[in-house]
Amino acid sequence: IRHISVLYFFCLTINGMNYLITGGAGFIGSHMCTALIKQGHHVVCIDNLSLGSVQNIDHIINNNHFTFVQGDILDKSLFESLFVKSTIDCIIHLAANSDIQAGSENVAVDIDKTFLTTVACLSCIKKFNIKQFVFASSSAVYGDSVQPLSETTNHYFPVSFYGAAKLAAEHYIHAMLAQVDCKAWVIRFPNVVGDRLTHGVVYDFIHKLIKDPKELKILGDGKQKKPYVMVDDLIDAIFLVVNTMQKAFNVVNVGVQSATTVTSIADIVTQQMNLSNVSYAYTGGTGGWVGDVAQFSYDLSLIKSLGWQARYTSDQAITESVRRQLTHMKKIK
Amino acid sequence: IRHISVLYFFCLTINGMNYLITGGAGFIGSHMCTALIKQGHHVVCIDNLSLGSVQNIDHIINNNHFTFVQGDILDKSLFESLFVKSTIDCIIHLAANSDIQAGSENVAVDIDKTFLTTVACLSCIKKFNIKQFVFASSSAVYGDSVQPLSETTNHYFPVSFYGAAKLAAEHYIHAMLAQVDCKAWVIRFPNVVGDRLTHGVVYDFIHKLIKDPKELKILGDGKQKKPYVMVDDLIDAIFLVVNTMQKAFNVVNVGVQSATTVTSIADIVTQQMNLSNVSYAYTGGTGGWVGDVAQFSYDLSLIKSLGWQARYTSDQAITESVRRQLTHMKKIK
Repeated sequence: IRHISVLYFFCLTINGMNYLITGGAGFIGSHMCTALIKQGHHVVCIDNLSLGSVQNIDHIINNNHFTFVQGDILDKSLFESLFVKSTIDCIIHLAANSDIQAGSENVAVDIDKTFLTTVACLSCIKKFNIKQFVFASSSAVYGDSVQPLSETTNHYFPVSFYGAAKLAAEHYIHAMLAQVDCKAWVIRFPNVVGDRLTHGVVYDFIHKLIKDPKELKILGDGKQKKPYVMVDDLIDAIFLVVNTMQKAFNVVNVGVQSATTVTSIADIVTQQMNLSNVSYAYTGGTGGWVGDVAQFSYDLSLIKSLGWQARYTSDQAITESVRRQLTHMKKIK
Repeated sequence: IRHISVLYFFCLTINGMNYLITGGAGFIGSHMCTALIKQGHHVVCIDNLSLGSVQNIDHIINNNHFTFVQGDILDKSLFESLFVKSTIDCIIHLAANSDIQAGSENVAVDIDKTFLTTVACLSCIKKFNIKQFVFASSSAVYGDSVQPLSETTNHYFPVSFYGAAKLAAEHYIHAMLAQVDCKAWVIRFPNVVGDRLTHGVVYDFIHKLIKDPKELKILGDGKQKKPYVMVDDLIDAIFLVVNTMQKAFNVVNVGVQSATTVTSIADIVTQQMNLSNVSYAYTGGTGGWVGDVAQFSYDLSLIKSLGWQARYTSDQAITESVRRQLTHMKKIK
């Protein structure tokens, strides 16, 4: 038995790191947990299940490299207990509000779920001497900036509280690094699609068309055009960034050069659902909602210089996401 | 009586605006209240007296253009009641944490006192349709940026939570403007000196030297060099900026081109206090404390283009501030 336990610790030390994934039962979080376990790491996942679900982590819930804790990051004693129970090597902070519109209506949403959860992570980084922190930032930090959006931009003009909260969190991360010896990777996600979506245009269109397969209400004029990245590609990018960018504070855009219009997404969804003669009812205007950035493109030269190349174009990512989402829904049925 | 009241309202409409000054019993706030009353405006001043004091507003407390409310901005029902009682034309938001070191030790300080008080103002701007908002920002938003610090800078890297909270507040202001019809002026203050100081190096040196007139402990190596602006000049600058910059979102540095080292400040203070043979005990290192930006200079081309010129150089501002501070202390005795 002693030999086995020595071997076990040996494997842990050599092959496995201890990761804390916040929002780990969410769309992106569940993919991150799965990938880390596949790589031999140990994962503690905390999620308050406000957007995430146990279904999303059903396939790993019994894995002995995986621990799920249902709870809120802002529950200080619960959150700190995770660091007492395990020696956490790296926090990947994915928990956040992801509903931009809800945040516009109630200013507290992004402050609580995005900004203050990040501050809670930072407090634990200081208290428990955590060495690595990955933060899920967003293209929304740029807001009404000069396109293509670059990490070296001279303008940050968020037009949503969602973007402002992500940017506020970034600044707090940078300020904390003056006090602690920790590396941070701020990764600015674009729109991300794939299976286990909890929100967003692909999710909305599928659910609207199930309810009414004849007419699809589309916010704006349908010409909003954004790059969509496949969740598999995003996860790969995160690992690449963490392994290759080695400054104390690292900021990088992740995305694809191609982009897809909202009308094209509607076309892909209706086609995949084998619907014909769906009429599109546009609400009009150029943006989808208050705080929407109708068109954007990323400067991707930094992540490309690290050797990254997305496997899916924006259109391919949408198509594959719809396919997986429909398969997943059939399974649940 | 009817004629008098009509005349009264006429005067109000033509000559007077209603200002809400947060932190109006503080150092800068009390000067702002005084200046606005002199101009014929009506001022509602809210202050929780955590740093401000009734002494600071003693000279205007009985003026019928002035209303003082002791309370906290985060007390939502109290704060909203101010907007119900008066029609506020403009909020000048000066309430904030001003103790950078206290904020480094406890991350909640700047979040509560700087960031969340700003969010409370923004919520009232939306709810009560306020048209003008002035925000006291800081050179600390730039942090470790390229010098001279310019509003068109390409980097915001705050190294203190103080700076991060100011910058987070700026972003929230910008994001709110996507939802409301309001003009905002973000004015980035440098170090400000004058009478009624509540903190800072001038205040500290005077109080340390009263306690021990033989030895003065100086944080860092004394070579930290920053521009200090006289509070009178700052108030003038704020009025100029509000009257001349007319975009929805306006950002501007206020400062002086000259700068003063910490050792020079010590020299000025000891000289003004008629002390000789004071020995300086330097704690060493280049920065005064965690989050200190040891040297900075502003690009002032924007505010100069508006026609602004400070009356006091940095050295003159320090000298005059020490003189006033000492006179004020003699009066209190």
